[in-house]
Amino acid sequence: MPHIKLPEGLQGIRSAMAFRPETAKPLNELAEALLHAPNSLAQGDRELIATYVSSLNDCYFCQTVHGAIAAACLSDDHDLVKRVKADFLAAEISDKLKALLVIAAKVQKGGKHVTAADVEAARAHGATDLEIHDTVLISAAFCMYNRYVDGLDTWQPRDEALYRERGKKTARDGYVSMSREYLPGCVDKA
Amino acid sequence: MPHIKLPEGLQGIRSAMAFRPETAKPLNELAEALLHAPNSLAQGDRELIATYVSSLNDCYFCQTVHGAIAAACLSDDHDLVKRVKADFLAAEISDKLKALLVIAAKVQKGGKHVTAADVEAARAHGATDLEIHDTVLISAAFCMYNRYVDGLDTWQPRDEALYRERGKKTARDGYVSMSREYLPGCVDKA
Repeated sequence: MPHIKLPEGLQGIRSAMAFRPETAKPLNELAEALLHAPNSLAQGDRELIATYVSSLNDCYFCQTVHGAIAAACLSDDHDLVKRVKADFLAAEISDKLKALLVIAAKVQKGGKHVTAADVEAARAHGATDLEIHDTVLISAAFCMYNRYVDGLDTWQPRDEALYRERGKKTARDGYVSMSREYLPGCVDKA
Repeated sequence: MPHIKLPEGLQGIRSAMAFRPETAKPLNELAEALLHAPNSLAQGDRELIATYVSSLNDCYFCQTVHGAIAAACLSDDHDLVKRVKADFLAAEISDKLKALLVIAAKVQKGGKHVTAADVEAARAHGATDLEIHDTVLISAAFCMYNRYVDGLDTWQPRDEALYRERGKKTARDGYVSMSREYLPGCVDKA
Protein backbone atom coordinates (compact mmCIF):
# COMPACT_ATOMS: atom_id res chain seq x y z
CA MET A 1 0.00 0.00 0.00
CA PRO A 2 1.38 3.44 -0.86
CA HIS A 3 2.88 5.41 2.04
CA ILE A 4 0.48 8.33 1.42
CA LYS A 5 -3.07 8.50 0.05
CA LEU A 6 -2.58 8.49 -3.72
CA PRO A 7 -5.38 8.44 -6.34
CA GLU A 8 -6.45 4.82 -6.88
CA GLY A 9 -6.32 2.91 -10.17
CA LEU A 10 -3.19 4.67 -11.45
CA GLN A 11 0.11 2.80 -11.55
CA GLY A 12 3.59 3.83 -10.52
CA ILE A 13 4.58 7.42 -11.17
CA ARG A 14 1.13 8.28 -12.58
CA SER A 15 -0.49 8.08 -9.14
CA ALA A 16 2.16 10.39 -7.66
CA MET A 17 1.83 12.79 -10.58
CA ALA A 18 -1.95 12.94 -10.26
CA PHE A 19 -1.49 13.67 -6.53
CA ARG A 20 0.84 16.62 -7.27
CA PRO A 21 0.25 18.12 -10.75
CA GLU A 22 2.51 21.11 -9.97
CA THR A 23 5.58 18.85 -9.94
CA ALA A 24 4.19 16.44 -12.56
CA LYS A 25 4.40 19.14 -15.23
CA PRO A 26 8.20 19.70 -15.13
CA LEU A 27 8.79 15.96 -14.52
CA ASN A 28 6.94 15.10 -17.74
CA GLU A 29 8.59 17.95 -19.67
CA LEU A 30 12.02 16.72 -18.60
CA ALA A 31 11.24 13.18 -19.80
CA GLU A 32 9.90 14.62 -23.07
CA ALA A 33 13.07 16.68 -23.69
CA LEU A 34 15.42 13.81 -22.84
CA LEU A 35 13.64 10.79 -24.28
CA HIS A 36 11.11 11.82 -26.94
CA ALA A 37 12.23 15.10 -28.54
CA PRO A 38 14.31 14.84 -31.74
CA ASN A 39 17.93 13.92 -30.93
CA SER A 40 20.97 12.51 -32.75
CA LEU A 41 20.78 9.65 -30.23
CA ALA A 42 18.02 7.29 -31.36
CA GLN A 43 14.87 7.18 -29.26
CA GLY A 44 15.34 3.44 -28.66
CA ASP A 45 18.91 4.01 -27.43
CA ARG A 46 17.75 6.71 -24.99
CA GLU A 47 14.98 4.45 -23.66
CA LEU A 48 17.49 1.60 -23.26
CA ILE A 49 19.66 3.87 -21.09
CA ALA A 50 16.59 4.75 -18.97
CA THR A 51 15.64 1.07 -18.72
CA TYR A 52 19.13 -0.06 -17.78
CA VAL A 53 19.52 2.56 -15.02
CA SER A 54 16.06 1.68 -13.67
CA SER A 55 17.09 -1.98 -13.51
CA LEU A 56 20.27 -1.02 -11.60
CA ASN A 57 18.01 0.86 -9.17
CA ASP A 58 15.70 -2.19 -9.01
CA CYS A 59 12.57 -0.18 -9.87
CA TYR A 60 10.01 -2.61 -11.37
CA PHE A 61 7.62 0.01 -12.72
CA CYS A 62 10.26 2.15 -14.49
CA GLN A 63 12.32 -0.68 -15.95
CA THR A 64 9.18 -2.41 -17.23
CA VAL A 65 7.46 0.59 -18.77
CA HIS A 66 10.65 2.06 -20.27
CA GLY A 67 11.71 -1.41 -21.41
CA ALA A 68 8.37 -1.62 -23.21
CA ILE A 69 8.89 1.82 -24.78
CA ALA A 70 12.42 0.82 -25.86
CA ALA A 71 11.10 -2.41 -27.40
CA ALA A 72 8.40 -0.45 -29.24
CA CYS A 73 11.21 1.63 -30.82
CA LEU A 74 13.22 -1.51 -31.66
CA SER A 75 10.78 -3.53 -33.82
CA ASP A 76 9.25 -5.10 -30.70
CA ASP A 77 12.51 -6.82 -29.76
CA HIS A 78 11.75 -7.42 -26.08
CA ASP A 79 14.54 -10.01 -25.89
CA LEU A 80 17.14 -7.41 -26.82
CA VAL A 81 15.91 -5.21 -23.95
CA LYS A 82 16.35 -8.17 -21.58
CA ARG A 83 19.84 -8.88 -22.90
CA VAL A 84 20.87 -5.24 -22.41
CA LYS A 85 19.68 -5.40 -18.80
CA ALA A 86 21.46 -8.71 -18.16
CA ASP A 87 24.81 -7.94 -19.87
CA PHE A 88 24.88 -4.98 -22.23
CA LEU A 89 28.50 -5.54 -23.29
CA ALA A 90 27.43 -8.84 -24.88
CA ALA A 91 24.23 -7.47 -26.46
CA GLU A 92 23.80 -6.61 -30.16
CA ILE A 93 23.96 -2.85 -29.74
CA SER A 94 26.44 -0.30 -31.12
CA ASP A 95 29.84 0.26 -29.50
CA LYS A 96 28.79 3.88 -28.99
CA LEU A 97 25.75 2.84 -26.97
CA LYS A 98 27.87 0.40 -24.95
CA ALA A 99 30.28 3.25 -24.07
CA LEU A 100 27.34 5.48 -23.11
CA LEU A 101 25.86 2.72 -20.93
CA VAL A 102 29.21 2.48 -19.11
CA ILE A 103 28.89 6.22 -18.30
CA ALA A 104 25.22 5.82 -17.29
CA ALA A 105 26.14 2.99 -14.88
CA LYS A 106 28.84 5.17 -13.29
CA VAL A 107 26.39 8.07 -12.84
CA GLN A 108 23.92 5.66 -11.19
CA LYS A 109 26.56 4.90 -8.54
CA GLY A 110 27.39 8.60 -8.15
CA GLY A 111 28.51 11.42 -10.46
CA LYS A 112 32.14 11.34 -9.32
CA HIS A 113 32.57 7.78 -10.64
CA VAL A 114 32.61 9.02 -14.26
CA THR A 115 36.21 9.32 -15.50
CA ALA A 116 37.80 11.26 -18.36
CA ALA A 117 38.69 7.85 -19.85
CA ASP A 118 35.00 6.80 -19.86
CA VAL A 119 34.13 9.98 -21.75
CA GLU A 120 37.06 9.58 -24.16
CA ALA A 121 35.95 6.02 -24.95
CA ALA A 122 32.45 7.26 -25.82
CA ARG A 123 33.93 10.01 -28.01
CA ALA A 124 36.17 7.48 -29.76
CA HIS A 125 33.00 5.61 -30.77
CA GLY A 126 31.47 8.78 -32.17
CA ALA A 127 29.50 10.19 -29.22
CA THR A 128 29.04 13.98 -29.31
CA ASP A 129 29.17 16.29 -26.30
CA LEU A 130 25.39 16.61 -26.42
CA GLU A 131 24.95 12.83 -26.44
CA ILE A 132 27.33 12.49 -23.48
CA HIS A 133 25.47 15.29 -21.65
CA ASP A 134 22.11 13.64 -22.29
CA THR A 135 23.39 10.24 -21.17
CA VAL A 136 24.55 11.73 -17.85
CA LEU A 137 21.24 13.54 -17.36
CA ILE A 138 19.07 10.56 -18.38
CA SER A 139 20.88 8.40 -15.82
CA ALA A 140 20.68 11.11 -13.15
CA ALA A 141 16.99 11.71 -13.89
CA PHE A 142 16.16 8.02 -13.53
CA CYS A 143 17.94 8.00 -10.17
CA MET A 144 15.21 10.53 -9.32
CA TYR A 145 12.19 8.92 -11.03
CA ASN A 146 13.07 5.48 -9.58
CA ARG A 147 13.39 6.85 -6.02
CA TYR A 148 10.14 8.81 -6.42
CA VAL A 149 8.19 5.73 -7.56
CA ASP A 150 9.60 3.40 -4.89
CA GLY A 151 9.99 5.97 -2.09
CA LEU A 152 6.19 6.45 -2.05
CA ASP A 153 5.64 2.68 -2.45
CA THR A 154 3.35 3.23 -5.45
CA TRP A 155 1.11 0.49 -6.88
CA GLN A 156 3.09 -1.51 -9.49
CA PRO A 157 1.02 -4.42 -10.81
CA ARG A 158 3.05 -7.32 -12.23
CA ASP A 159 1.37 -7.49 -15.65
CA GLU A 160 3.79 -7.07 -18.53
CA ALA A 161 1.04 -6.96 -21.18
CA LEU A 162 -0.36 -3.80 -19.65
CA TYR A 163 3.06 -2.12 -19.75
CA ARG A 164 3.62 -3.20 -23.36
CA GLU A 165 0.38 -1.61 -24.49
CA ARG A 166 1.24 1.64 -22.71
CA GLY A 167 4.82 1.50 -23.98
CA LYS A 168 3.63 1.53 -27.60
CA LYS A 169 1.51 4.62 -26.99
CA THR A 170 4.21 6.53 -25.11
CA ALA A 171 6.83 5.66 -27.75
CA ARG A 172 4.54 7.23 -30.35
CA ASP A 173 2.95 10.16 -28.49
CA GLY A 174 5.54 11.11 -25.85
CA TYR A 175 5.31 11.98 -22.17
CA VAL A 176 3.57 15.33 -22.14
CA SER A 177 0.84 14.14 -24.46
CA MET A 178 0.32 10.87 -22.52
CA SER A 179 0.06 12.79 -19.26
CA ARG A 180 -3.25 14.26 -20.44
CA GLU A 181 -4.81 10.86 -19.60
CA TYR A 182 -4.25 11.20 -15.87
CA LEU A 183 -3.65 14.94 -15.44
CA PRO A 184 -6.78 16.46 -16.92
CA GLY A 185 -6.35 20.15 -17.56
CA CYS A 186 -2.77 20.27 -16.30
CA VAL A 187 -1.03 20.20 -19.65
CA ASP A 188 -3.39 22.49 -21.51
CA LYS A 189 -3.43 25.01 -18.66
CA ALA A 190 0.35 25.35 -18.99
CA MET B 1 38.08 20.27 -16.21
CA PRO B 2 34.51 19.44 -17.24
CA HIS B 3 34.07 16.21 -19.23
CA ILE B 4 32.42 18.10 -22.12
CA LYS B 5 32.84 21.64 -23.45
CA LEU B 6 30.60 23.73 -21.19
CA PRO B 7 30.23 27.53 -21.30
CA GLU B 8 33.05 29.09 -19.24
CA GLY B 9 32.64 31.33 -16.21
CA LEU B 10 29.47 29.62 -14.96
CA GLN B 11 29.62 27.41 -11.89
CA GLY B 12 28.14 24.00 -11.20
CA ILE B 13 24.72 23.29 -12.65
CA ARG B 14 24.56 26.73 -14.36
CA SER B 15 27.18 25.73 -16.93
CA ALA B 16 25.28 22.51 -17.75
CA MET B 17 21.99 24.41 -17.96
CA ALA B 18 23.45 27.04 -20.29
CA PHE B 19 24.77 24.17 -22.49
CA ARG B 20 21.30 22.59 -22.74
CA PRO B 21 18.47 25.14 -22.21
CA GLU B 22 15.82 22.59 -23.32
CA THR B 23 16.41 20.51 -20.18
CA ALA B 24 17.29 23.53 -18.00
CA LYS B 25 13.74 24.81 -18.23
CA PRO B 26 11.98 21.82 -16.57
CA LEU B 27 14.90 21.39 -14.14
CA ASN B 28 14.45 24.97 -12.90
CA GLU B 29 10.66 24.67 -12.84
CA LEU B 30 10.91 21.53 -10.72
CA ALA B 31 13.20 23.28 -8.21
CA GLU B 32 10.83 26.26 -8.17
CA ALA B 33 7.77 24.06 -7.43
CA LEU B 34 9.53 22.05 -4.73
CA LEU B 35 11.68 24.65 -2.98
CA HIS B 36 10.36 28.16 -3.64
CA ALA B 37 6.61 28.01 -4.32
CA PRO B 38 4.28 28.56 -1.32
CA ASN B 39 4.09 25.41 0.83
CA SER B 40 3.04 24.46 4.37
CA LEU B 41 6.64 23.27 4.81
CA ALA B 42 8.81 26.35 5.42
CA GLN B 43 11.20 27.35 2.65
CA GLY B 44 14.17 27.02 5.03
CA ASP B 45 13.11 23.46 5.96
CA ARG B 46 12.84 22.45 2.29
CA GLU B 47 16.28 23.92 1.54
CA LEU B 48 17.73 22.08 4.56
CA ILE B 49 16.42 18.79 3.12
CA ALA B 50 18.04 19.62 -0.24
CA THR B 51 21.30 20.57 1.50
CA TYR B 52 21.38 17.46 3.64
CA VAL B 53 20.77 15.09 0.71
CA SER B 54 23.44 16.91 -1.32
CA SER B 55 25.90 16.43 1.54
CA LEU B 56 25.07 12.70 1.65
CA ASN B 57 25.82 12.60 -2.08
CA ASP B 58 29.04 14.56 -1.44
CA CYS B 59 28.20 17.26 -4.01
CA TYR B 60 30.15 20.41 -3.05
CA PHE B 61 28.31 22.82 -5.36
CA CYS B 62 24.77 21.75 -4.38
CA GLN B 63 25.34 21.46 -0.63
CA THR B 64 27.10 24.84 -0.55
CA VAL B 65 24.63 26.81 -2.64
CA HIS B 66 21.52 25.23 -1.07
CA GLY B 67 23.13 25.55 2.38
CA ALA B 68 23.51 29.28 1.64
CA ILE B 69 19.88 29.51 0.51
CA ALA B 70 18.75 27.67 3.67
CA ALA B 71 20.80 30.01 5.85
CA ALA B 72 19.32 33.04 4.07
CA CYS B 73 15.87 31.71 5.07
CA LEU B 74 17.03 31.09 8.67
CA SER B 75 18.25 34.54 9.79
CA ASP B 76 21.71 33.85 8.31
CA ASP B 77 22.32 30.96 10.74
CA HIS B 78 25.07 29.21 8.77
CA ASP B 79 26.08 27.27 11.89
CA LEU B 80 22.67 25.63 12.10
CA VAL B 81 23.05 24.46 8.49
CA LYS B 82 26.41 22.90 9.41
CA ARG B 83 24.95 21.20 12.48
CA VAL B 84 22.10 19.72 10.42
CA LYS B 85 24.63 18.27 7.96
CA ALA B 86 26.81 16.88 10.77
CA ASP B 87 24.07 15.41 13.03
CA PHE B 88 20.53 16.57 12.36
CA LEU B 89 19.04 14.59 15.26
CA ALA B 90 21.05 16.78 17.67
CA ALA B 91 20.32 20.07 15.84
CA GLU B 92 17.81 22.72 17.01
CA ILE B 93 15.15 21.91 14.41
CA SER B 94 11.57 20.68 14.83
CA ASP B 95 10.79 17.01 15.49
CA LYS B 96 8.73 17.07 12.29
CA LEU B 97 11.74 18.15 10.23
CA LYS B 98 13.89 15.51 11.93
CA ALA B 99 11.37 12.83 10.94
CA LEU B 100 11.29 14.15 7.36
CA LEU B 101 15.09 14.14 7.20
CA VAL B 102 15.03 10.47 8.23
CA ILE B 103 12.80 9.80 5.19
CA ALA B 104 14.99 11.93 2.92
CA ALA B 105 18.09 9.99 3.98
CA LYS B 106 16.34 6.67 3.22
CA VAL B 107 15.30 7.92 -0.24
CA GLN B 108 18.91 8.96 -0.91
CA LYS B 109 19.98 5.33 -0.34
CA GLY B 110 17.11 4.06 -2.50
CA GLY B 111 13.32 4.40 -2.50
CA LYS B 112 12.68 0.94 -1.07
CA HIS B 113 14.47 1.87 2.18
CA VAL B 114 11.53 4.04 3.29
CA THR B 115 9.31 2.12 5.74
CA ALA B 116 5.71 2.58 6.85
CA ALA B 117 7.12 3.25 10.35
CA ASP B 118 9.26 6.15 9.00
CA VAL B 119 6.16 7.68 7.45
CA GLU B 120 4.05 7.10 10.59
CA ALA B 121 6.72 8.84 12.70
CA ALA B 122 6.58 11.90 10.43
CA ARG B 123 2.78 11.91 10.61
CA ALA B 124 2.89 11.64 14.42
CA HIS B 125 4.90 14.88 14.42
CA GLY B 126 2.31 16.61 12.24
CA ALA B 127 3.59 16.01 8.71
CA THR B 128 0.87 16.00 6.03
CA ASP B 129 0.74 13.69 3.01
CA LEU B 130 1.81 16.58 0.79
CA GLU B 131 4.81 17.34 3.02
CA ILE B 132 5.82 13.66 2.99
CA HIS B 133 5.39 13.55 -0.81
CA ASP B 134 7.50 16.67 -1.25
CA THR B 135 10.22 15.36 1.07
CA VAL B 136 10.48 12.16 -1.00
CA LEU B 137 10.60 14.13 -4.26
CA ILE B 138 13.08 16.75 -2.97
CA SER B 139 15.44 13.97 -1.90
CA ALA B 140 14.94 12.08 -5.19
CA ALA B 141 15.43 15.28 -7.22
CA PHE B 142 18.71 16.07 -5.47
CA CYS B 143 19.91 12.54 -6.23
CA MET B 144 19.48 13.77 -9.83
CA TYR B 145 20.88 17.32 -9.55
CA ASN B 146 23.93 16.09 -7.59
CA ARG B 147 24.72 13.39 -10.17
CA TYR B 148 24.22 15.87 -13.02
CA VAL B 149 26.62 18.41 -11.49
CA ASP B 150 29.33 15.87 -10.59
CA GLY B 151 28.78 13.48 -13.53
CA LEU B 152 29.84 16.26 -15.93
CA ASP B 153 32.66 17.34 -13.58
CA THR B 154 31.45 20.95 -13.62
CA TRP B 155 33.54 23.86 -12.30
CA GLN B 156 32.88 24.28 -8.55
CA PRO B 157 35.11 27.02 -7.08
CA ARG B 158 35.75 26.69 -3.32
CA ASP B 159 34.66 30.21 -2.33
CA GLU B 160 31.87 30.23 0.23
CA ALA B 161 31.36 34.02 0.05
CA LEU B 162 30.33 33.73 -3.58
CA TYR B 163 27.75 31.04 -2.77
CA ARG B 164 26.37 33.09 0.15
CA GLU B 165 25.73 36.09 -2.06
CA ARG B 166 23.96 33.95 -4.65
CA GLY B 167 22.05 32.08 -1.92
CA LYS B 168 20.48 35.33 -0.70
CA LYS B 169 19.24 36.19 -4.19
CA THR B 170 17.88 32.72 -4.94
CA ALA B 171 16.13 32.57 -1.55
CA ARG B 172 14.37 35.82 -2.45
CA ASP B 173 13.74 35.49 -6.19
CA GLY B 174 13.52 31.72 -6.79
CA TYR B 175 14.98 29.42 -9.42
CA VAL B 176 13.10 30.34 -12.57
CA SER B 177 13.72 34.05 -12.06
CA MET B 178 17.44 33.54 -11.25
CA SER B 179 17.87 31.38 -14.34
CA ARG B 180 17.36 34.49 -16.51
CA GLU B 181 20.93 35.48 -15.59
CA TYR B 182 22.52 32.58 -17.45
CA LEU B 183 19.73 31.45 -19.80
CA PRO B 184 18.94 34.62 -21.71
CA GLY B 185 15.66 34.32 -23.55
CA CYS B 186 14.94 30.79 -22.32
CA VAL B 187 12.49 31.66 -19.58
CA ASP B 188 10.62 34.40 -21.37
CA LYS B 189 10.33 32.29 -24.52
CA ALA B 190 8.48 29.63 -22.51
